[in-house]
Amino acid sequence: MIYVVFVEPETPGNIGFLARTMKNFGLSDMVLINPCQLENESYYQAMHAREVVRNAKVYNSIPEFLEAEKIDFTVGTTGEAGGSYNLPRIAVTPDKFAENLNLTGKMALLFGREGNGLSNDEIELCDVIVTIPTHEDYPIMNITHAAAIVLYEIFKKKKSYPREELEEASKVEKDGLIGTMDDIVEKLGYPEHKSKNASLVFRRIIGRAFISGREAHTLKGTLRRINERLLEK
Amino acid sequence: MIYVVFVEPETPGNIGFLARTMKNFGLSDMVLINPCQLENESYYQAMHAREVVRNAKVYNSIPEFLEAEKIDFTVGTTGEAGGSYNLPRIAVTPDKFAENLNLTGKMALLFGREGNGLSNDEIELCDVIVTIPTHEDYPIMNITHAAAIVLYEIFKKKKSYPREELEEASKVEKDGLIGTMDDIVEKLGYPEHKSKNASLVFRRIIGRAFISGREAHTLKGTLRRINERLLEK
Repeated sequence: MIYVVFVEPETPGNIGFLARTMKNFGLSDMVLINPCQLENESYYQAMHAREVVRNAKVYNSIPEFLEAEKIDFTVGTTGEAGGSYNLPRIAVTPDKFAENLNLTGKMALLFGREGNGLSNDEIELCDVIVTIPTHEDYPIMNITHAAAIVLYEIFKKKKSYPREELEEASKVEKDGLIGTMDDIVEKLGYPEHKSKNASLVFRRIIGRAFISGREAHTLKGTLRRINERLLEK
Repeated sequence: MIYVVFVEPETPGNIGFLARTMKNFGLSDMVLINPCQLENESYYQAMHAREVVRNAKVYNSIPEFLEAEKIDFTVGTTGEAGGSYNLPRIAVTPDKFAENLNLTGKMALLFGREGNGLSNDEIELCDVIVTIPTHEDYPIMNITHAAAIVLYEIFKKKKSYPREELEEASKVEKDGLIGTMDDIVEKLGYPEHKSKNASLVFRRIIGRAFISGREAHTLKGTLRRINERLLEK
């Protein structure tokens, strides 16, 4: 299940453009975070996807939404991909993202404000960051055009789904991995910013690798063992 | 050289949306065939691509444009791809199109009217027809969103990317990570088949996660530190 989440939309028409694009690619679960007022324009631009706008769920904040809908996997999108020194914004392209996608559980695709995109805090909530390769002269796309490309790539790759034998690890399993790695990192005597980076990189790798339940189990065993050995010291 | 041709645009804002998308993907040669009046909205939606709108060439008809600009290769786009009995509209997907594209000479990419797309006569002028795979419930996209996807696929296949700062970690870097993890696993006192599994899972995750050079560097630091701490024991 894929939720398409528009974070603080500012322009009523864009809600409609996004709804239409969603329906073009077979998606109908729209979420609006603290949106502007819906207007006629929102329904007009949706054309034959008006029911997507009408059925959109509204939340006040991203964490509230993630909690209420029990989201397993959160995907951020950004037009400002990190350079190599901006770890939180290191991103994959939409085709690489789609290629590795295993659609089990509930996924949220976050699209940011028209003006400012997603904040750093919001980006850090995400398991994976996706960015569209664009020309350096003008890298920032209109948000609904960017969404069209991401949804298109996911739609293209869907034919091969679901790959049942490769069932993805659940959010609980992945959170367990991340938590254990955090414990390990804590024991390494790093200054705070370094341990934060180390944890973030691990989380992103887990997010991007679409690991199976079986793999998560094996890795958890290894991490737990490492953690214990470090304790004994 | 690629001309992006908007045939009889009806909505001033759409000219701006198309111009912005063009610049996002490094294109600047816009042609308008018998367009509506340009309005402030055309320039406003173009954002930082206003000069693309300003420099657009205007023609009365497609044949007049093809002749005047000496176009070598004409590409039509349609939301209504032909079944096998509608020969003129038999179409390729944007990725297949881009894959086989040979960018020499002058190419024109035609995008049709917002309401009706390209007519059969116009479609017959084209050397290739491109259509975007969409969901059967609502196959017709907004024209500028469809254009974004086609321009994106063309851009993807060009050499200008991946952007260097987001370069994927090299094989050497990844092998370094895997080697360090192997060293760690060796110190955990696992029976052989278990340590083999642990190493394999880690290698697979690294392989699937498309980690950047920077991320590899951070993770390598963490693993090395873990490895040293385990040694000290």
